[in-house]
Amino acid sequence: MASPIQEHLEKTNKEYASNFTQGHLALPPAKKYLILTCMDARIDPASAFGITLGDAHVIRNAGASARDALRSLIISQQLLGTREIILIKHTGCGMSTFKDEDAHAVVKKNVGDEAAKSIEDLKFLAFPDLEQGVRDDLEFLKRHAAIPEEITLSGWVYEVESGKVRRVE
Amino acid sequence: MASPIQEHLEKTNKEYASNFTQGHLALPPAKKYLILTCMDARIDPASAFGITLGDAHVIRNAGASARDALRSLIISQQLLGTREIILIKHTGCGMSTFKDEDAHAVVKKNVGDEAAKSIEDLKFLAFPDLEQGVRDDLEFLKRHAAIPEEITLSGWVYEVESGKVRRVE
Repeated sequence: MASPIQEHLEKTNKEYASNFTQGHLALPPAKKYLILTCMDARIDPASAFGITLGDAHVIRNAGASARDALRSLIISQQLLGTREIILIKHTGCGMSTFKDEDAHAVVKKNVGDEAAKSIEDLKFLAFPDLEQGVRDDLEFLKRHAAIPEEITLSGWVYEVESGKVRRVE
Repeated sequence: MASPIQEHLEKTNKEYASNFTQGHLALPPAKKYLILTCMDARIDPASAFGITLGDAHVIRNAGASARDALRSLIISQQLLGTREIILIKHTGCGMSTFKDEDAHAVVKKNVGDEAAKSIEDLKFLAFPDLEQGVRDDLEFLKRHAAIPEEITLSGWVYEVESGKVRRVE
């Protein structure tokens, strides 16, 4: 009944839980920051960005899009007290390899007309240039009325080839 | 110039990069699955769910909302070939502690009228019951025209108190 992926989850989690000692952590992030990064399979935020369990929210979506993350960003800040946003996009990102119209065409071809119609208003938020993508998202956050001015913002690039981060802004 | 959080990121990443040996990994997730979970600070998906670097997309937002993740889910499946969604919500989730109207009221009080107006159409997607929240999101995915029927779906709860996952559906 369980798929191999599901079996793997159950097996590896059993081992994790048997050594788990962090059940006392509080809901609000202890260090009051959040990392917004990409869903890319080559990124392990906890290890690559030095996040200690309980310290930070981690939001991940396709391309580390600030627009797409707005709901989570506001909840993190206004309801759970975070005060700093670390935005990290990365080299080799899939979101720089296609345009919005390409994605819509792929859905139409693969899943059909009804599928294409169900998401016709969806913006895929692709970005052609990596550094510019980081700057544009920071600008979006700076200008957004619901992101308070006192929130500390920075933008970074993670290199999937080297494991290194570098600051863009 | 750098904040303590930014300094911490740079310092811990330097160590990570110095031991990094995974620069050869491909863009599409090797095991063709994705995990959708919450941004909660108490969750480390790679460790808790046994994700090997390069194997899976990881999408995280407030409450592990499938609706909010739709853009990323479609990109993951249609452009990067994933075939299985593991949805994991968790005990003690902030999204079960307030209602949408509370969140809008908090933004208005904390950030002001302009801020409240800028997000008046935003749905925060709170859910009162955890297991039901998992089932509702799976139902949303099953019924959505742009999520192909052949995608394998399962829904889970992660217990932040014990580190254990248990399957809901």
